[in-house]
Amino acid sequence: MKVAIFFGSKSDTEQMKKAADVLREFGVDFKAYVISAHRAGALLARTVRQVESDGCEVIIAGAGLAAALPGVIASETVLPVIGVPLECVSPGKSNGLAGMDSLLSIVQMPPQIPVATVGINSAKNAAYLAVEILAVKYPELRAKLADFRKKLADDVEKNGGLGIEL
Amino acid sequence: MKVAIFFGSKSDTEQMKKAADVLREFGVDFKAYVISAHRAGALLARTVRQVESDGCEVIIAGAGLAAALPGVIASETVLPVIGVPLECVSPGKSNGLAGMDSLLSIVQMPPQIPVATVGINSAKNAAYLAVEILAVKYPELRAKLADFRKKLADDVEKNGGLGIEL
Amino acid sequence: MKVAIFFGSKSDTEQMKKAADVLREFGVDFKAYVISAHRAGALLARTVRQVESDGCEVIIAGAGLAAALPGVIASETVLPVIGVPLECVSPGKSNGLAGMDSLLSIVQMPPQIPVATVGINSAKNAAYLAVEILAVKYPELRAKLADFRKKLADDVEKNGGLGIEL
Amino acid sequence: MKVAIFFGSKSDTEQMKKAADVLREFGVDFKAYVISAHRAGALLARTVRQVESDGCEVIIAGAGLAAALPGVIASETVLPVIGVPLECVSPGKSNGLAGMDSLLSIVQMPPQIPVATVGINSAKNAAYLAVEILAVKYPELRAKLADFRKKLADDVEKNGGLGIEL
Amino acid sequence: MKVAIFFGSKSDTEQMKKAADVLREFGVDFKAYVISAHRAGALLARTVRQVESDGCEVIIAGAGLAAALPGVIASETVLPVIGVPLECVSPGKSNGLAGMDSLLSIVQMPPQIPVATVGINSAKNAAYLAVEILAVKYPELRAKLADFRKKLADDVEKNGGLGIEL
Amino acid sequence: MKVAIFFGSKSDTEQMKKAADVLREFGVDFKAYVISAHRAGALLARTVRQVESDGCEVIIAGAGLAAALPGVIASETVLPVIGVPLECVSPGKSNGLAGMDSLLSIVQMPPQIPVATVGINSAKNAAYLAVEILAVKYPELRAKLADFRKKLADDVEKNGGLGIEL
Amino acid sequence: MKVAIFFGSKSDTEQMKKAADVLREFGVDFKAYVISAHRAGALLARTVRQVESDGCEVIIAGAGLAAALPGVIASETVLPVIGVPLECVSPGKSNGLAGMDSLLSIVQMPPQIPVATVGINSAKNAAYLAVEILAVKYPELRAKLADFRKKLADDVEKNGGLGIEL
Amino acid sequence: MKVAIFFGSKSDTEQMKKAADVLREFGVDFKAYVISAHRAGALLARTVRQVESDGCEVIIAGAGLAAALPGVIASETVLPVIGVPLECVSPGKSNGLAGMDSLLSIVQMPPQIPVATVGINSAKNAAYLAVEILAVKYPELRAKLADFRKKLADDVEKNGGLGIEL
Repeated sequence: MKVAIFFGSKSDTEQMKKAADVLREFGVDFKAYVISAHRAGALLARTVRQVESDGCEVIIAGAGLAAALPGVIASETVLPVIGVPLECVSPGKSNGLAGMDSLLSIVQMPPQIPVATVGINSAKNAAYLAVEILAVKYPELRAKLADFRKKLADDVEKNGGLGIEL
Repeated sequence: MKVAIFFGSKSDTEQMKKAADVLREFGVDFKAYVISAHRAGALLARTVRQVESDGCEVIIAGAGLAAALPGVIASETVLPVIGVPLECVSPGKSNGLAGMDSLLSIVQMPPQIPVATVGINSAKNAAYLAVEILAVKYPELRAKLADFRKKLADDVEKNGGLGIEL
Repeated sequence: MKVAIFFGSKSDTEQMKKAADVLREFGVDFKAYVISAHRAGALLARTVRQVESDGCEVIIAGAGLAAALPGVIASETVLPVIGVPLECVSPGKSNGLAGMDSLLSIVQMPPQIPVATVGINSAKNAAYLAVEILAVKYPELRAKLADFRKKLADDVEKNGGLGIEL
Repeated sequence: MKVAIFFGSKSDTEQMKKAADVLREFGVDFKAYVISAHRAGALLARTVRQVESDGCEVIIAGAGLAAALPGVIASETVLPVIGVPLECVSPGKSNGLAGMDSLLSIVQMPPQIPVATVGINSAKNAAYLAVEILAVKYPELRAKLADFRKKLADDVEKNGGLGIEL
Repeated sequence: MKVAIFFGSKSDTEQMKKAADVLREFGVDFKAYVISAHRAGALLARTVRQVESDGCEVIIAGAGLAAALPGVIASETVLPVIGVPLECVSPGKSNGLAGMDSLLSIVQMPPQIPVATVGINSAKNAAYLAVEILAVKYPELRAKLADFRKKLADDVEKNGGLGIEL
Repeated sequence: MKVAIFFGSKSDTEQMKKAADVLREFGVDFKAYVISAHRAGALLARTVRQVESDGCEVIIAGAGLAAALPGVIASETVLPVIGVPLECVSPGKSNGLAGMDSLLSIVQMPPQIPVATVGINSAKNAAYLAVEILAVKYPELRAKLADFRKKLADDVEKNGGLGIEL
Repeated sequence: MKVAIFFGSKSDTEQMKKAADVLREFGVDFKAYVISAHRAGALLARTVRQVESDGCEVIIAGAGLAAALPGVIASETVLPVIGVPLECVSPGKSNGLAGMDSLLSIVQMPPQIPVATVGINSAKNAAYLAVEILAVKYPELRAKLADFRKKLADDVEKNGGLGIEL
Repeated sequence: MKVAIFFGSKSDTEQMKKAADVLREFGVDFKAYVISAHRAGALLARTVRQVESDGCEVIIAGAGLAAALPGVIASETVLPVIGVPLECVSPGKSNGLAGMDSLLSIVQMPPQIPVATVGINSAKNAAYLAVEILAVKYPELRAKLADFRKKLADDVEKNGGLGIEL
């Protein structure tokens, strides 16, 4: 296992699955855990230590509302922790604060304990960032990323980059 | 009666019912009143005094928009007042300011007259907080809360805390 | 000791001292701890358990930025936790996001684990709220609060409530 | 007396004095009261009824933070109530939320109980609006306002309206 | 005619109709005009002068986005102008900035030219405010308003003010 | 070709088509390109140079999220660049930050490299602005614009400007 | 004269002077006018027509608070209008809403009447944009802009672009 | 060299120096470049390729306002890019939008091209994050980080973690 994915509630599964899909695409092994920092803090700490000793090298953590999860994980490890602010459908039927609450709760970390924050609901980018971080160590991932980027640019050329009808 | 629940408009009933459900779960007696601070201020003041003399020990107040209700109640009593900012579907068909207006109207109280504010639409947490406050006095509630928290943590373990497929 | 005051950084001392002053005024014993949730999580958990077994009945927690402290404490105890969002002079010389980041990080807690949030920088109101909560159990505090409120109202009358020159 | 000016704290005196200056300029009698809705609700209600029976025709109310004052006054009278959101230097040394909290707390009133809201810190405009409202009834005030507006336009012409060096 | 209602786009008709309904309820004559300040400024200025000479005493103006209409009308008359920020479904399919853009565009007027702003989408409250302003001059409207408020308070008592099941 | 329209993703086609419709209405030739600044930077730079040498005189660029496209184009050319902030349905199913993220990413350009920003989702206005800019050079476009504006004002008169039933 | 600079208050002179300095640098003639849209609407309309008939080709308009000036000018002319949101020190001593109110009041224009908006307080960029627009017509300005941009890039190389000590 | 630090303006030197200090503390080699993405795009692209071929493994990029720099760099490389939103004292004397504009411009990246965003003005945390990323590959850095964290926790214990006078 190279990456551990944490999130706080089963209702975030669909969002976080996008990170899993990207990791699979790059052939990066991962495990996933649904642990709320506020409801099961001891289990969370234990599991972070476990994944570390299992060889995990990067952690992805998605959370909504007062999104403490990524920061609490970051406080338990020196592995790079990538935080995904999730736009929580808040308790009721509201579409909440559009994820601004979780963005600020994740990105505004105190000195010394950083969280690498990506965009709201952007579990996908969390995975690409994880791959980039692993690619610092693993040259084959770096090559895959370079290919992937080249393909992205080629796709732009094929899909309107040379002009479209409007 | 140990808790009085106030809210300003019948349209908030469904939201505030969640507080009632939690209180029932913990066996805490409560009464509920629909009184707008702006439309029936005298009745509100009278009712706050009444619930106080009926032995009420904690008040929960939910309100939307320029949410004066919790603060006005707090000004009439020294009982702890818990404020629930409600995301009001504002007069029209808009989904309003996502509850930010009511959050600021409730939490930013002047010195000396606090309101214990919970999250937007979080009537549930208002009730859990009411139980925690009552548990300071009633040891049996404290025991129930401890059990409840333990069960929460156990549920996390059973529902993905030990790893899931993603 | 009836109240424990926690905050995450020595730079918040002046703000949190206002809570201490109010508690002293009401004759409520307290202890204070400077523990960052992100830098010393284990010490924090240990200390929360310690103050609980020392008889502490209410906790006040002040924090800025991605203010995880009150929520993390709330996850470790069933005592009522009062959160004070602090407007952090962010690392540089900025006056930050005016405390909006810490307000949202504290108030938007997930279901089941409430934090009783007061206004930005309002450590004073956290203490008044703590006294109100203790007054549910201790009748002498309730009497003191009633006197205090009466004095507040009298002061308004003496200080412009009957009319001033403008 | 035609206008009553209310505000909640002595620290707002300097701001609200600007309303008084404008009223004097138009020869409109007024009285001023410093009454916090949250600290002295009964006195506030009594005074609103008093100024009404003294012949007051428009009320100006300035408030900061969770600015309940204008709305609470509006709930006690059918006189037009003009609300001035004040940017409260919040308890600490912060410059707060730039008055956004008080603006939303004042303007977002529930149906049936309006508050005529002016700009943040704009006590001056509250007074001009009060004069405009009185001018509906008193033709001499309407004439004064027309003269005043004409003078404003003339001043623009004299002060750069015809071109300046830059 | 006592009240003129202006708004900038036919798409706002449904919202502004609520003001008309309230005025009819109080027996207040009004006329309505759909004039965009930005598309037909000359017609707007001419019409404002016309309604003034027709005896109009209060103006209601609803507008969305960069809502200049109420302010531009205020600059053309000394009649009280009530501004209604409308939450514009912005050009596309977005639900826009929830009316925050129009609220700020209307309420933050420069000194000397006030607009009496009501809540977002609150055309209803604009009409109640218009009636309150007219009631300064017309005692029969004041009596009607007092009756209306009494009925509101009575309705609260009948609809949950004395307690409901939750 | 006088105008080049750029946008970063095929999903923005429907929005940007509105610009095309306006340009056609005024008989202004244009070409359109779908090029993401972040995925195909080299192609973007090359294409900007190409349209410039093809005689393009104004550029319209629409983008959402961290909307770098208009600014990056502006850095590659001295042609006027008009930026359209698009409200991106962020990756998930959220309705995002209502376009506030892209508005700030586009309008807050550093000194020397301006982007002429229009309203959120307002591709239509981007095209009108492009026509106004071209009209500085081409008198026939200026005449068309004057006619168009006159027609707009006439339409207002026919559609409620002289009064409607409400 | 090729450019007319408008702003609403003498207190904005220092900010708007930066636009004048840039125009002088590029040898572009301009005139400046201090006219409030709300205080002297007739003079404003007259002056816009005057500058148009004097050959003005681009208009720059700076305004704060409910910044109607750029939009009102845009409604009176088909010349391109560049809007500069100014961060108004609001009436009191506040530093206001950081210019967010004026930004939204300027940029969110209704369809058909665009304002080319630049960043908050960015009068400088308004002038660069004016020069870019004029350069569509005047080749010598285009050459000057190209030189200027080249110099900018060269300066970057000389000032840290090749590496600095940190 | 293991880390390259980029920022767009000399005025950000003091802020970004904090990143340099942390890197030196951990013995990590770095180089620094002051290159504006908008003023010297070609030099930027060239330099990114250069540092990559010089062996750089992580990039830190600080930027304010419409902060395109981190995203543009991310589009030119597959190295992990850490973005630092800087609170730009905007052109005038304003304290701007408190860095909210640059935060959103950096964090809300489109899919596939992530930027690892840290808190506003938090160059320090950017450096700690860079060290954590390098530590995935270099075990000696991981050991240093673990020591550093242990020391942080110990310092908390010595500095108020066991209780202070308040």
